[in-house]
Amino acid sequence: MRITIYNEGVHEQQEGSTTQRLYPEGMHGAIAAGLRTHLPEASIRFAHLDLPSHGLTDDVLAETDVLLWWGHEAHDRVDDAVVSSVIRRVHEGMGFLPLHSAHYSKPFTRLMGTTCSLRWRGGNDRELVWTVSPTHPIAAGVPHPIIIEGQEMYGEHFDIPEPDDLIFISSFTGGEVFRSGATFTRGLGKIFYFSPGDQEYPVYHHPDIHRVLANGVRWAMPTLPPTTLDAPMAPLGWFEKG
Amino acid sequence: MRITIYNEGVHEQQEGSTTQRLYPEGMHGAIAAGLRTHLPEASIRFAHLDLPSHGLTDDVLAETDVLLWWGHEAHDRVDDAVVSSVIRRVHEGMGFLPLHSAHYSKPFTRLMGTTCSLRWRGGNDRELVWTVSPTHPIAAGVPHPIIIEGQEMYGEHFDIPEPDDLIFISSFTGGEVFRSGATFTRGLGKIFYFSPGDQEYPVYHHPDIHRVLANGVRWAMPTLPPTTLDAPMAPLGWFEKG
Amino acid sequence: MRITIYNEGVHEQQEGSTTQRLYPEGMHGAIAAGLRTHLPEASIRFAHLDLPSHGLTDDVLAETDVLLWWGHEAHDRVDDAVVSSVIRRVHEGMGFLPLHSAHYSKPFTRLMGTTCSLRWRGGNDRELVWTVSPTHPIAAGVPHPIIIEGQEMYGEHFDIPEPDDLIFISSFTGGEVFRSGATFTRGLGKIFYFSPGDQEYPVYHHPDIHRVLANGVRWAMPTLPPTTLDAPMAPLGWFEKG
Amino acid sequence: MRITIYNEGVHEQQEGSTTQRLYPEGMHGAIAAGLRTHLPEASIRFAHLDLPSHGLTDDVLAETDVLLWWGHEAHDRVDDAVVSSVIRRVHEGMGFLPLHSAHYSKPFTRLMGTTCSLRWRGGNDRELVWTVSPTHPIAAGVPHPIIIEGQEMYGEHFDIPEPDDLIFISSFTGGEVFRSGATFTRGLGKIFYFSPGDQEYPVYHHPDIHRVLANGVRWAMPTLPPTTLDAPMAPLGWFEKG
Repeated sequence: MRITIYNEGVHEQQEGSTTQRLYPEGMHGAIAAGLRTHLPEASIRFAHLDLPSHGLTDDVLAETDVLLWWGHEAHDRVDDAVVSSVIRRVHEGMGFLPLHSAHYSKPFTRLMGTTCSLRWRGGNDRELVWTVSPTHPIAAGVPHPIIIEGQEMYGEHFDIPEPDDLIFISSFTGGEVFRSGATFTRGLGKIFYFSPGDQEYPVYHHPDIHRVLANGVRWAMPTLPPTTLDAPMAPLGWFEKG
Repeated sequence: MRITIYNEGVHEQQEGSTTQRLYPEGMHGAIAAGLRTHLPEASIRFAHLDLPSHGLTDDVLAETDVLLWWGHEAHDRVDDAVVSSVIRRVHEGMGFLPLHSAHYSKPFTRLMGTTCSLRWRGGNDRELVWTVSPTHPIAAGVPHPIIIEGQEMYGEHFDIPEPDDLIFISSFTGGEVFRSGATFTRGLGKIFYFSPGDQEYPVYHHPDIHRVLANGVRWAMPTLPPTTLDAPMAPLGWFEKG
Repeated sequence: MRITIYNEGVHEQQEGSTTQRLYPEGMHGAIAAGLRTHLPEASIRFAHLDLPSHGLTDDVLAETDVLLWWGHEAHDRVDDAVVSSVIRRVHEGMGFLPLHSAHYSKPFTRLMGTTCSLRWRGGNDRELVWTVSPTHPIAAGVPHPIIIEGQEMYGEHFDIPEPDDLIFISSFTGGEVFRSGATFTRGLGKIFYFSPGDQEYPVYHHPDIHRVLANGVRWAMPTLPPTTLDAPMAPLGWFEKG
Repeated sequence: MRITIYNEGVHEQQEGSTTQRLYPEGMHGAIAAGLRTHLPEASIRFAHLDLPSHGLTDDVLAETDVLLWWGHEAHDRVDDAVVSSVIRRVHEGMGFLPLHSAHYSKPFTRLMGTTCSLRWRGGNDRELVWTVSPTHPIAAGVPHPIIIEGQEMYGEHFDIPEPDDLIFISSFTGGEVFRSGATFTRGLGKIFYFSPGDQEYPVYHHPDIHRVLANGVRWAMPTLPPTTLDAPMAPLGWFEKG
């Protein structure tokens, strides 16, 4: 189980930021710590915006079973060639977990084919995450609801295609609702979008969030050898007409 | 457009009840008034528990394009033979709108194949009804959100099959969420479950609820001549093997 | 992994029948042999129409993780009380695999809420089973297509609700198509309908069919402790309004 | 009802081609004639690869309710800026019908987020188009099956996201199957992919194909004023926290 966590790493470098205070090891560090609790067998590596190819060279991607993606400030600075490589790997079967503000990231919006816009408010809301697919492996062992004491608000309408499975719906103090956990398939790749998590709140230290992320990684693992469905449109050859 | 509204009519007969005060013409009367605003061409008739066959004889059902169903206290007193007739007509193409506590009605649970259980609290909540399928005809002209000042709480987990289309998600004052508007197809019949509406609150006088119900009726209208898919398993006959 | 295979057992008792010749151990015996190849850890028991409670007492059902169901001639002779017990166990999480002509069985039609009718022709067709969800665990290791040299024809329109996942589509010599592998969730129970298999053809000796059935059993295993979603509609109590 | 038909127009310019012989008015001409039979109120205009902006200027797109797209030889020569405009208009609500080999067109693949690859064979097959969603408006009045005497083969696996609605499944003489009619929503835009139709066969003169295309156009008509869901992530403002 080979995991790569991409965190753009901008907030972590802002001196005196809330992010630095909440996440001395970076958000990726908190996420990795959570994953290790549940997936001790996993090997985890990190990737960041300011590395060459953002740390996501073709070699790294080829050795990645599941890629988690956290971005916010610097979506536009992500290299289109890297984005294409990520998408090609998803098509081949790599799992992909876009987190929180990665709803607007290049790989996610290109895999969805929609704007992925949503409503937003920066107030300090309580988020409740309710399970609507109790038998889905991503919901295994998750309380109903998950209670997140401090969080910004993401609200409907969330401009995504109809999910394969809608797993979580959140409510916020203001009464808004959000489809906060949803799965998609693109090619051979499984995608799990999960919205809880923010650079201004300690959500990535929350044990229930750790469990969901670990469940998501396990679920998104490739089930077939890396391959591509983008075969040339060759005649079947092997199969005769009746 | 031939509409039949079944209202069991129990609460309306309880002297001094809130229902009598809120709905002097019965909940069915308020619903009918709302439908007439948007569907002036519709002919509407009523059916009640204490009529012979609950007012749902085979003749009435044969002349019904869309059946709305409100029940709460007297699910068990509905005759199984009538339930079978309703289900057969849904399979033939009759539209069906189970409302609010009709989640536990015999026709709805038998069409779903699940328990249709949910969480419930009788407190006086504010319900906000958010649209998640903005292009669906049932959401046409509906504000985002619909604001219902007084309502009991229906919460997840709602034990239904995965809907064809999830149109509305509600939140409540307590922070709970509910898939409050969802569509299903069974045979040739279109089904729209819509939860807002209660005998203790004036929800069926709410103009936005009127609009949703009228949209739902229009959407659920049969599109084919009444027929059945339950053909005998006869050989195709008309079609030769290649 | 505790598996029960219900086979009504009518064709097996018809002296000189094709079924007796093709399946000296019964169709259930051939299915069990196939499952044992892929699931050596499984314990398998059998149930038949002419046993008390058809072999499906509450005790047996309580000890069953996944129930396979083969029926054809004797759907009407299955006791309604047993059917109710089966459905309650599916709601609690028991996996359920209705096979071939079990499309018309009482448990399947009641879980679907539709007639489950289909087109049929008794000629000796070649059936090709094509995978349309290559990442689904039920399709793991399955050739594309599975080739079944002799089979009767099942054709669209198949009157089922929209499946959660459509996994296989079959074609037949006559040019007909059929959604031959489809999944559903009802309550906490996972359901996989799979059409290949017949009392007149040796389909249940086919190694690829064995693989699909084993994949289906593994996929349908309960993921939660046996429980019911049919909670009384009690106030939440544990959760305060905000 | 303002329709634009984009036909790249390459085959029509090849002297002596089958396309010239079968389609003296171009494939777009045959499609337009078919649409006019069923949609006499529609205004139809044409767009081609070799026009400035391929005939799809922002003004033309702004005046288009539904865009049909036929392309094959020249997908790569379509300007990325035009593709972006088309996608933006789909997000705003413009209907979109990619036809046949447009499965590989830039707008369709970008809206899907997948490769949209498929299996192919150039032999002269008989295609049968079976309806699996009989109540869907796109299937209204369509025979079961549509019989197309001459056609090339498109087969599974078709690398698309799970459709909103699967309407048609085709079989071919070789026994292959294909999800030949499927709908998707992207933003406010409705998309109907329909595979029958080819430059080498007279499929676009087939009256049943005309009916499906007309049904598809009617279904894909925008239901809301042109707008965008890609709102800035501004605070809600209008809505107070509870």
